[in-house]
Amino acid sequence: MNNKIDLELRARAKAVIPNGMYGHESVGLLPDGYPQFFAKADGAYIWDVDGNRYLDFMCAYGPNLLGYKHEKINAAYIDQLSRGDAMTGPSPMLVELAENFVGMVSHADWAMFAKNGTDVTSMAMVIARAHTGKKKIVLAKGAYHGAAPWCTPIKNGVTEEDRANQIFYDYNDVASLEAAVNEAGDDLAAIFGSPFKHDAFVDQEMPNPAYARRARELCDAKGALLVVDDVRAGFRLARDCSWSLVGVQPDLSAWGKLIANGHPISALLGSEKAREAAGSIYVTGSYWFAGAAMAAAVATLKEIRETDYLEHTVKLGTKLRNGLAELAAASGFGLRQTGPVQMPLFLFDDDADFRKGYFWSAELLKHGVYVHPWHNMFLCAAMKDEDIDLALRAAKEGFAALKQHQGALERIGKLDALQAAHV
Amino acid sequence: MNNKIDLELRARAKAVIPNGMYGHESVGLLPDGYPQFFAKADGAYIWDVDGNRYLDFMCAYGPNLLGYKHEKINAAYIDQLSRGDAMTGPSPMLVELAENFVGMVSHADWAMFAKNGTDVTSMAMVIARAHTGKKKIVLAKGAYHGAAPWCTPIKNGVTEEDRANQIFYDYNDVASLEAAVNEAGDDLAAIFGSPFKHDAFVDQEMPNPAYARRARELCDAKGALLVVDDVRAGFRLARDCSWSLVGVQPDLSAWGKLIANGHPISALLGSEKAREAAGSIYVTGSYWFAGAAMAAAVATLKEIRETDYLEHTVKLGTKLRNGLAELAAASGFGLRQTGPVQMPLFLFDDDADFRKGYFWSAELLKHGVYVHPWHNMFLCAAMKDEDIDLALRAAKEGFAALKQHQGALERIGKLDALQAAHV
Repeated sequence: MNNKIDLELRARAKAVIPNGMYGHESVGLLPDGYPQFFAKADGAYIWDVDGNRYLDFMCAYGPNLLGYKHEKINAAYIDQLSRGDAMTGPSPMLVELAENFVGMVSHADWAMFAKNGTDVTSMAMVIARAHTGKKKIVLAKGAYHGAAPWCTPIKNGVTEEDRANQIFYDYNDVASLEAAVNEAGDDLAAIFGSPFKHDAFVDQEMPNPAYARRARELCDAKGALLVVDDVRAGFRLARDCSWSLVGVQPDLSAWGKLIANGHPISALLGSEKAREAAGSIYVTGSYWFAGAAMAAAVATLKEIRETDYLEHTVKLGTKLRNGLAELAAASGFGLRQTGPVQMPLFLFDDDADFRKGYFWSAELLKHGVYVHPWHNMFLCAAMKDEDIDLALRAAKEGFAALKQHQGALERIGKLDALQAAHV
Repeated sequence: MNNKIDLELRARAKAVIPNGMYGHESVGLLPDGYPQFFAKADGAYIWDVDGNRYLDFMCAYGPNLLGYKHEKINAAYIDQLSRGDAMTGPSPMLVELAENFVGMVSHADWAMFAKNGTDVTSMAMVIARAHTGKKKIVLAKGAYHGAAPWCTPIKNGVTEEDRANQIFYDYNDVASLEAAVNEAGDDLAAIFGSPFKHDAFVDQEMPNPAYARRARELCDAKGALLVVDDVRAGFRLARDCSWSLVGVQPDLSAWGKLIANGHPISALLGSEKAREAAGSIYVTGSYWFAGAAMAAAVATLKEIRETDYLEHTVKLGTKLRNGLAELAAASGFGLRQTGPVQMPLFLFDDDADFRKGYFWSAELLKHGVYVHPWHNMFLCAAMKDEDIDLALRAAKEGFAALKQHQGALERIGKLDALQAAHV
């Protein structure tokens, strides 16, 4: 693949940005050959700056739910922009969007909006402490809740005090959760849970209903708040909070990424019980009340209510999962496909340093399919049956090439630091 | 003024948002009669949902520099949006924008982008700690650096540990700064300074060059990093970091609000010395690499370089300051106008609970001029000579009404909690 312009941009970037790029979209931890810079996106596809096209299973790491460049949603954004975006007060879209969320998410009696996922997971923590007057937050080991000092997975520049008052449990493990809550004693402010286990580097796990119910019971017994961090998975599993699927209602849920189909906004939703505490804290941001992203979110929620985006991504995800399972078996590879079919993760057996996953993913990339070797992926509603066929053809080539080259693969060392941080 | 629709929206908002509104744009702490919701904005004006028009001296609390609904800048946003906004990697706009900043801001050798001002002030803190391996951050008492647990002015839900490792000094006071640095001992990571003192509720103060220079010297002596929080004032005082005006170059500067004329983006700029530490931390956000706001920022920086927006706002601000001084004197009121003329603050003498300021501001509002009784304001480049005339006519009416009613003004109690928090 031609990558001349990408290399030129990387060289320029290296001069004016630390390491040339930062954060979750850096390709520093991806196989060689992954492009860093993209020229455009449309539907289910992205084009790199050298004109190579990819079927995109990352969906911007979540924000793309209904297809890139979605006509109705972008029109809603631009329409509000032409009236007023960041103004000296909010537009009526603030109220309309809050009403939309409260109408759609069972546990929600109120909403607050911000920009980053981290903004709203942090707000949940602060509100739980304001509500309870307690300090301890009980969290699942290895779960990602954002990149502020209290939660970023890499601890450079982070102090011990930033991580004070945190107690960890093993996701889905009732005894471990109980032990963590026990350790908090009479100082428990909140239990945080991911909607399912979607940590990097390891198999995904759907939530054990007994664990989710026990988290609810323990919060009720202790007067603490139950927080579901639905930033990554919200509305991808259900048209409600993800834990509605296991019959558990949290007090607070954090949302982001797809709620405006890529336009910048995040949301914290809460139950009546948490309203007073939510009203007692001071949080804000320069662009939090800007109307355009709210108008796009209102338009996105309408599509979520009125289209079969969810059933469609489940259907295509099932086809992809079954197809890959057949291909892997036929090639003699153990490929573990975990998590919801519409948010898949592919990990090879006997592949501790990801050398197989790296090689196979890079082969798919050469065939125009962008997959990730160690982070969960996403399907979007713009994908079609024939896109899954394309992915399966690329995967078949990938398995064949892997079979041929697997003896000569070299160790992948660049993940060591990040993997260590996730332990 | 008609406010029927505003009241209806407030009632709906009260049901689905804690207190009906939150953050810095809540009118809960403004005089009665200030509208909460706005329908549109154009140039220097905003229209509330009931159709009342105001000359807007808040400029969205900073983001509006060149005029609302700026044609070129919105076109740049929409153009990039039509290609790709939040994608699986950044667009080339990331590099172009970083190069622009590095070319414009003297101390900057690199740039990183985020969404909130708080994101980049927090990053500065983390980078300083990563660079030095030290913990203590020395900050000016009462300065606003954002609304994360470590810095929000209201401490509900905030723990002692969130505020650990902070030492405070009095802005512009060299001895106080030295004492704070001394207290940090051999554990100093950074000194934070605002470009000028722009705290709420009190007179603004321009920086004493001796204080700024001493901050630089102390950082150099201790190996700590000097951080200028230019989120609110950056590019309003200079086409460079604000402390370039006093001849002091920081290691890190935080930017936001106006850098894309209202489109959502913030920036952290750093010197070579801080590059390695900046590259060692993990910070990210779902929309941090989205191209549209970066394209708008590139277009905004071009206007900043090529137009007389700065000289224009200084000229109009001077006219406003002189005109108000005359009117206040003629009416017998002591009106303290502090800070740069293009970022004015008006406080009445003998007005501890702001009853005069509240009354006078509310009178201006009735005459179509939106001013703030205790927060600094902003002029924008779309303002014209005749707009200042309009403001001065409204101010004259305001002074006359205040003179008539000042004996009957009631105590304003609603600021007590917030004022206490700022002490």
